[in-house]
Amino acid sequence: MAISLGELAVRFGCDLRGDPAAEVDSVATLQNAGPRAVTFLANPRYRRHLAQTRAGAVILEPRIADACPVAALIAADPYATYARVAALLYPDRQYSAGVSASARVSAEAFVAPSASIGANVVIEERARIGERVRIGPGCVIMRDTTVDTDCRLSANVTLCHGVHVGARALIHPGVVIGADGFGLAPERGRWLKVPQVGGVRIGSDVEIGANTTIDRGAIEDTVIGDGVKLDNQIQIGHNVQVGAHTAIAGCTGVSGSTTIGRNCMIGGMVGIAGHLEICDGVVITGRTLVSRSLTRPGVYSGGLPADEARRWRRNSVRFRHLDELAQRVEQLGGGRLNTAQEEGEHDREDD
Amino acid sequence: MAISLGELAVRFGCDLRGDPAAEVDSVATLQNAGPRAVTFLANPRYRRHLAQTRAGAVILEPRIADACPVAALIAADPYATYARVAALLYPDRQYSAGVSASARVSAEAFVAPSASIGANVVIEERARIGERVRIGPGCVIMRDTTVDTDCRLSANVTLCHGVHVGARALIHPGVVIGADGFGLAPERGRWLKVPQVGGVRIGSDVEIGANTTIDRGAIEDTVIGDGVKLDNQIQIGHNVQVGAHTAIAGCTGVSGSTTIGRNCMIGGMVGIAGHLEICDGVVITGRTLVSRSLTRPGVYSGGLPADEARRWRRNSVRFRHLDELAQRVEQLGGGRLNTAQEEGEHDREDD
Amino acid sequence: MAISLGELAVRFGCDLRGDPAAEVDSVATLQNAGPRAVTFLANPRYRRHLAQTRAGAVILEPRIADACPVAALIAADPYATYARVAALLYPDRQYSAGVSASARVSAEAFVAPSASIGANVVIEERARIGERVRIGPGCVIMRDTTVDTDCRLSANVTLCHGVHVGARALIHPGVVIGADGFGLAPERGRWLKVPQVGGVRIGSDVEIGANTTIDRGAIEDTVIGDGVKLDNQIQIGHNVQVGAHTAIAGCTGVSGSTTIGRNCMIGGMVGIAGHLEICDGVVITGRTLVSRSLTRPGVYSGGLPADEARRWRRNSVRFRHLDELAQRVEQLGGGRLNTAQEEGEHDREDD
Repeated sequence: MAISLGELAVRFGCDLRGDPAAEVDSVATLQNAGPRAVTFLANPRYRRHLAQTRAGAVILEPRIADACPVAALIAADPYATYARVAALLYPDRQYSAGVSASARVSAEAFVAPSASIGANVVIEERARIGERVRIGPGCVIMRDTTVDTDCRLSANVTLCHGVHVGARALIHPGVVIGADGFGLAPERGRWLKVPQVGGVRIGSDVEIGANTTIDRGAIEDTVIGDGVKLDNQIQIGHNVQVGAHTAIAGCTGVSGSTTIGRNCMIGGMVGIAGHLEICDGVVITGRTLVSRSLTRPGVYSGGLPADEARRWRRNSVRFRHLDELAQRVEQLGGGRLNTAQEEGEHDREDD
Repeated sequence: MAISLGELAVRFGCDLRGDPAAEVDSVATLQNAGPRAVTFLANPRYRRHLAQTRAGAVILEPRIADACPVAALIAADPYATYARVAALLYPDRQYSAGVSASARVSAEAFVAPSASIGANVVIEERARIGERVRIGPGCVIMRDTTVDTDCRLSANVTLCHGVHVGARALIHPGVVIGADGFGLAPERGRWLKVPQVGGVRIGSDVEIGANTTIDRGAIEDTVIGDGVKLDNQIQIGHNVQVGAHTAIAGCTGVSGSTTIGRNCMIGGMVGIAGHLEICDGVVITGRTLVSRSLTRPGVYSGGLPADEARRWRRNSVRFRHLDELAQRVEQLGGGRLNTAQEEGEHDREDD
Repeated sequence: MAISLGELAVRFGCDLRGDPAAEVDSVATLQNAGPRAVTFLANPRYRRHLAQTRAGAVILEPRIADACPVAALIAADPYATYARVAALLYPDRQYSAGVSASARVSAEAFVAPSASIGANVVIEERARIGERVRIGPGCVIMRDTTVDTDCRLSANVTLCHGVHVGARALIHPGVVIGADGFGLAPERGRWLKVPQVGGVRIGSDVEIGANTTIDRGAIEDTVIGDGVKLDNQIQIGHNVQVGAHTAIAGCTGVSGSTTIGRNCMIGGMVGIAGHLEICDGVVITGRTLVSRSLTRPGVYSGGLPADEARRWRRNSVRFRHLDELAQRVEQLGGGRLNTAQEEGEHDREDD
């Protein structure tokens, strides 16, 4: 579809510098946009490409509008405005309501008439599929599971029994929700399975990335709050609670019974131990290991960056003797370094 | 189902303090249990909730029984006893034997009459499905693969050709067993695929978490021992052997040709390099990198915990110069620190 | 199939020491090979098994041929030669062309007559499946996606819309290509979805391991070069470019908009931050965190190896005070240690 810059400015509350009648029909990058494409500049890293752009229009902040060589859509938050423009130019594909002939829907399930159920979908007894839900090929919805209005399950998604998915969820392929948590009781050198009898409750407006897994609760439900965004290949253990509007990047794992607050931002490959509390408003950078509760909002880190291998190895060997090094320094002068407190905390943790 | 406390005590060998005729029909947490629910106290972290519990009964250790305000089922191992009580109160769902009309079963496959084969399951030639096996929707069992008695495959599980799964396995959705290992021979700047002609042998009583992958052997089989428990999103490389009754938490990766002993406990996000030997009885805490064989039982660690970002960054910069720091300390007095041996080991490793 | 050592020597350009008429029909390990099996010795770790081997023949380097107690196929590159021999002895299974009765192929899709489409496969409108492509059970190929000649998709693979897969790709079960990237614009405490309108382009001769995910581009395509080899459970973010003939081991994650060069070797569980450039010929050892661009070929590391837990904990506590330790050393004598430069770099990174 094509739309004029004037209409974009009006719809999204931008100031327009340029011809309001000029039309765009697509989005593109700053470097590669042609005159029918709209682009944006939000990350300063890409600022250097602005002068050469041949875009139809650039969405950008007021303070850099003067530097824009083409039409400018000036917005307080260019990235959010871009997101809205792109959603307008690339509307969701239309689906026709109805159940594919190859879908297997239990006679005891409820499927809303406006829902679209794809090929080879399996819907078990007492599942409930809401209005305008779209379920793509190969998805399995087990018994007693509810998928609320306007959800979209892409393909090959598995929702185990007793899961509730709130309205407008977007669930990507390969996601598994409601598999058993890792509950094991040790007994004489063997493992006894602990039945996982809780469910999973997903709030509204949640997005779940490809091949992410969310385990059912051991007793009560695992809970994902409204507006939570989960990237790909995340593992959420049983009984975890993730607060509303928290975003978690790919490959992160959250161990069982941990509670994460609202409006947190958690980077990729972060590991969070079990039975912790992470308060609201915490930011955790990529690859951090969180092994204690975080009770104050703020930014936390824990990843050591790469180094040239030979140098890394020398430092890494020294790390194995860091305590000895510190003791040597204490002997050389100046007395004790301030680590006694943490040692004590660690000891208590072992109790 | 409802059961009396007296019957629970007799069945599971507990001492009962309370009315043997009182009935329970469910499990619940210490905090939220009502009078018809049984709960347990095993983790001292939750001890503080005991005084307020309104449970029908609490399964707990003898030494804290006096503190229990409601009926107590006193057990030497409360968590194991809880597991058995929960299994009794929440029996597995009944499946009816037979092959779904939408399943595609090769005429050359064998499916035991008591097995239950779900919708859209595909079973290829010469596969063998044992008595009382339940295979959920969308699973694919390729040629020459055997699934022993009483196994349960939840949904969308893929067993490639030539895999053997022992009795009573529980395999969660999205698991892939028997895909090719990562075998590549470098040749003039390209990669030549090394055919992966081994299989996978899974022992009995194994549980495999959602989206975990276990590669087939390059030449001989990848082997998972009896009673092994694997959490979600674990990657097991080709030729790996995991000893009986070892448990591995989520997101851990084991590289090719490594052997892990019996009765090990391996935490989440652990990375184990290839061609190593981990002996019996090793415990590895979460997020550890294992790059050498572990030849003595014991506890091993390797994760640096999160810190406030600004402080982390300062320490992290210092780490890049740790060897220089140590040399400075050596110059200041006291002579060499004890790292020569490890340097040598590292060098040998490079040969 | 059986083949004589003489024919193997001729086909693969080896020197043969032994009876050219002797036949082999299988591959095996050095330790377990019998007289009908061919084996190889490439990793010096296994050299000690050579003297006892009972193999029909061993593929090995010239310099150790004298130590071989059985027939020797002498090759400059024994592992590559072994790969070719194994491929000859274990030819790919034959598939018959045609579309399974249970596959759902859109009338608007094109499937080459020589392609083999398995049970329950779904192929949407305008998808194009090339000659001799084999698509296993449960795969979903969405609209406008192209799978080039001689590709093989094992089972339960999901290719979202607008993906292009080059010739001869091998894609293992559970792979998801073309799911939305993690594009979110923060706005007043909520996340606005940024439409992901790019696609994915996979070159020729690519292998993709089980449950690996490759996201579609935000605007332009995510690109995987020719001959790239990806192991299991890898996550490739949106807009990433991976150069030709790069190999990446399991559980590695590459964040959005990062470019990786040609002929790189990236170990397992490596984490690569977003918007970086990794140049050609970089080797990154397992478990490394890459948070800056790597502009020079070479070997990079970043994983601290496991230690006995008690010792690890002492060193780890000292790490939390490493900056203080370094300051103390500076006070004790010798002046500033050389870290000022990096501090500055870090600061700039925050801008």
